Amino acid sequence: MKRAKLSVLPLILAAQPLWAESDPIKHDSEYYILFSQHAEQWADDDAAVDQRLAEFKEKNGGKPPNIFSILIDDLGFGDMGIPELNAIRGYDTPNINDFSDEGLRMVRMYTEPSCTPTRVAQMTGRLPVRMGMGDTAVDIAGFGLPGSEVILPEVLKQAGYATSHVGKWHMGDVAESWAMNQGFDYAQMAVHQQGQLTIFNDDAIKEQVSVAIQDYDDKYTIDGYFRPDASTMMTVIEGEAGGPINEIRMAPGERWNAQKYDEMNQAFQDKTMEELQRLAAGEEPFFLQYWPMIPLDNTRAGRDGPQSANGGLYVDKMQLLDQWLGDLFSEMDRLGVAENTIVVVMGDNGHFTKYSPQSGFTPMIFKGGKAETTEGGVRVDAFIRWPGMIEADGLLNSIVHVSDLYTTFARFAGAVQYIPRDRLVDGVDQSAALLFSDESKARRDSVIIYSADQPKAIVKDQLKLKLPPKGENPIIAKFYNLYRDTREEYPVSTEVGAWGGQEFVRILSRHQARKELFPDTPPAFGLPYEGVENMRPETKQAVDAFIVRRDSPKQ
Amino acid sequence: MKRAKLSVLPLILAAQPLWAESDPIKHDSEYYILFSQHAEQWADDDAAVDQRLAEFKEKNGGKPPNIFSILIDDLGFGDMGIPELNAIRGYDTPNINDFSDEGLRMVRMYTEPSCTPTRVAQMTGRLPVRMGMGDTAVDIAGFGLPGSEVILPEVLKQAGYATSHVGKWHMGDVAESWAMNQGFDYAQMAVHQQGQLTIFNDDAIKEQVSVAIQDYDDKYTIDGYFRPDASTMMTVIEGEAGGPINEIRMAPGERWNAQKYDEMNQAFQDKTMEELQRLAAGEEPFFLQYWPMIPLDNTRAGRDGPQSANGGLYVDKMQLLDQWLGDLFSEMDRLGVAENTIVVVMGDNGHFTKYSPQSGFTPMIFKGGKAETTEGGVRVDAFIRWPGMIEADGLLNSIVHVSDLYTTFARFAGAVQYIPRDRLVDGVDQSAALLFSDESKARRDSVIIYSADQPKAIVKDQLKLKLPPKGENPIIAKFYNLYRDTREEYPVSTEVGAWGGQEFVRILSRHQARKELFPDTPPAFGLPYEGVENMRPETKQAVDAFIVRRDSPKQ
Repeated sequence: MKRAKLSVLPLILAAQPLWAESDPIKHDSEYYILFSQHAEQWADDDAAVDQRLAEFKEKNGGKPPNIFSILIDDLGFGDMGIPELNAIRGYDTPNINDFSDEGLRMVRMYTEPSCTPTRVAQMTGRLPVRMGMGDTAVDIAGFGLPGSEVILPEVLKQAGYATSHVGKWHMGDVAESWAMNQGFDYAQMAVHQQGQLTIFNDDAIKEQVSVAIQDYDDKYTIDGYFRPDASTMMTVIEGEAGGPINEIRMAPGERWNAQKYDEMNQAFQDKTMEELQRLAAGEEPFFLQYWPMIPLDNTRAGRDGPQSANGGLYVDKMQLLDQWLGDLFSEMDRLGVAENTIVVVMGDNGHFTKYSPQSGFTPMIFKGGKAETTEGGVRVDAFIRWPGMIEADGLLNSIVHVSDLYTTFARFAGAVQYIPRDRLVDGVDQSAALLFSDESKARRDSVIIYSADQPKAIVKDQLKLKLPPKGENPIIAKFYNLYRDTREEYPVSTEVGAWGGQEFVRILSRHQARKELFPDTPPAFGLPYEGVENMRPETKQAVDAFIVRRDSPKQ
Repeated sequence: MKRAKLSVLPLILAAQPLWAESDPIKHDSEYYILFSQHAEQWADDDAAVDQRLAEFKEKNGGKPPNIFSILIDDLGFGDMGIPELNAIRGYDTPNINDFSDEGLRMVRMYTEPSCTPTRVAQMTGRLPVRMGMGDTAVDIAGFGLPGSEVILPEVLKQAGYATSHVGKWHMGDVAESWAMNQGFDYAQMAVHQQGQLTIFNDDAIKEQVSVAIQDYDDKYTIDGYFRPDASTMMTVIEGEAGGPINEIRMAPGERWNAQKYDEMNQAFQDKTMEELQRLAAGEEPFFLQYWPMIPLDNTRAGRDGPQSANGGLYVDKMQLLDQWLGDLFSEMDRLGVAENTIVVVMGDNGHFTKYSPQSGFTPMIFKGGKAETTEGGVRVDAFIRWPGMIEADGLLNSIVHVSDLYTTFARFAGAVQYIPRDRLVDGVDQSAALLFSDESKARRDSVIIYSADQPKAIVKDQLKLKLPPKGENPIIAKFYNLYRDTREEYPVSTEVGAWGGQEFVRILSRHQARKELFPDTPPAFGLPYEGVENMRPETKQAVDAFIVRRDSPKQ
């Protein structure tokens, strides 16, 4: 049966009269496919959501809820919140497990396959490919998130929120990308991916787990630019919006090491606690973001021995992080903000399998890990707690993409009107599904999984199509039924193959057609670290080396 | 460092004076290694267990607890009791999940790798290799569990228990193997592995999923003995101890089909309900055993469509079984026996991966499935509920082998003295670990995993050695750290390899040395089905064909 290629335009036009707003958010095409089928239901649901949010606000002294968002690095599905899966791997995260019992688990939370794009999606509500941020750079890179993006704290600030960010940032080393320049009132943030800071240091060299220049007479190494010295890179910077920005963890001449990594992490924890106390004492509703760098950890040198029966480097740090989060949750109780604060805890992408099994984590329920587009790369633990508003010990089995948090948080905060209308926003409003614990109220049933700037897989319901390489006919593309085959090891080989290939390619075609209206744009390019007041001489040299590498003849 | 080969004899002698009993159970060697290190603690624990059991008995009108044991076919770890893992696979087992919240999960329950040996181990408390029952026969086989074994109901009966078995048996087609001839007061049981009954039938032939003789003119098939006609095999038999035994599901001339399979399963469920009611009304404490044949299911023909979003054949039947178990649990409440009955629900071995992904189940947390000695073959869901006596919503992360249930149930029933002392018993008493939810009170930290009559792997704590083929030096044998690597995909390649190979070989050597004192013996051989009163003419012919095949010249 031949079907005409669907254009979304008639769907949008048809949908328009039912849409409450005169200037709606511009979504990707699949949103309108669902909207055209559920518009009336969604209008009812929106009214019910509005009512519940109004009730909350009234009870909360006229203020919308605080939002405390915790995004954990490189953590796969099932690592938190399921005591059985703790036990079989010889470790324990009791505080997070208790927390998960108090909240709702978003069982089908999809992230992007690595740190940078996931964080970009959560901050911007958009697929990272839209502004050239689909890649994770570990080195000095000279690019980052453009200032033209309207990130979540900017949206919330317009609705009266105080905003603060602590921890990893990793969305660029150019100044306009940084949290305090992007809309956070205050930020203490690590500029780079921390792996680099721990791997390229003296402790790692001792353990021979580094590619850094060795300390023996290494006469065969004549290119000093090839192997980075992480000590020269910018570490942690701190500043307020509009104010000066300073590096705070390294003095000129200092060398990075495992102990400094531990101190940095402890300092992030302590600062988060401090910010929580400060913000809780303030008049405004707050948005506090904590992006810990642990559990990532790569060197045993200079550390205590195993802290768990598992003993893996990541797993031990996961237990530490559990204590830290437990401390923050207790402090929320003490401060009296547990009831009026939405807390989200989730991973940013799957395990970093390059460090398996020493990390203590290996792929298990899903196949693969970070940087792969199998579900092990993009399915993570994700919990949301909002006492009295979101079901305790609940499960939501709808597909949720990390970008949905942008739109949904904005809705919870009464800030939807500040989401920009001049660009495409991928994140959909999942507030009805969350507030009513009801999968039939979800506003997404598919996700396009990119790796950098290439779409690699499409998930719709329980079906997953692995996109064939360019030029290959999609009707032979491999298909998986995720319910029956979580590890994508048994391609479905029946008629669904031919049918599904076509249907999925239509999804991709609509997505690409929509890009003609809203084209992808490049990231911000610039000179790394410009604008840091106290730049170290070593760092200046590293920037010089970057310029040499960047500008060396390419042909 | 060279160490002398350990003999267990001095350990046993040293242990003797501390052992309360004058005639202790004879265990395998590893038990005495632990006993020599924990004898005093164990004596204290035994006293504490005795006291708690005495208190229970007093409150229970002087009677020990009832025991209701449910063993489910081919079910891997994580299929029951973890709502998140239900959700990601698109099905739901709410009743079993609730049950698991009321009981304790034995997170490291090890079975044997297939149906027959697991059932033998649970019934006899012994490794199936000890009486030649390590294999699972699917066809007419002419052998089975010897009558000389003292199985659990025989032990419990001596302590005053009424005993009943309903469902799968699958421990031989010779009469002396059968439940009603082995110690159960009553049994309604399927003689064979049910796969055969569903695969070799007309519905399966229609679906072309059968190796049975096709119904078209199959002139190339001239050996009518090679492809069995399952309709000729003995199906379900029923009888009381000492009484006549009759086949109850097939009349002469009838053909087996999917509908009959469904009816048989429903009848097992109904009979279990009936037995529960009958036994609950009796004076004696009871031991009721229900071994359902579902979730195993292999043909869609003649059935309703999918019953779950997953839609797999096994998964749909798992949802049905969940309803059925829910009905039994509710009935226990109604009958007032929930409080004084120990209920165990567990799988008998991992998924039957031959039927993946159509079954709806694929290996996930552990690698492999039924008939493999990776953990996917031998790790299963296992829950025990005893209100007020065993921790609700608890976890026990100690290694428990299915044979331990034999010894532990006997202890709970006050029937340890009826466990035979003239043979080796592998099952150890785990009552202290269970009653006090305390891993340090476990009496096992290792398990030798056999496939048929060959030891294939040894697990000690979190370490697993895959035994090398005969003649290969064990110091290069592959090692896995199960905590860090549940799927056994990253062999540990450090010094532990050489050390561990030797230490593990010592475990095996001690195990084999102990066999010199207690040698393995053969199973019972005989003519299939002898003693069934109403044997069908077709079945008699099938026995004749069996004799021809058995007695055909072998050289």
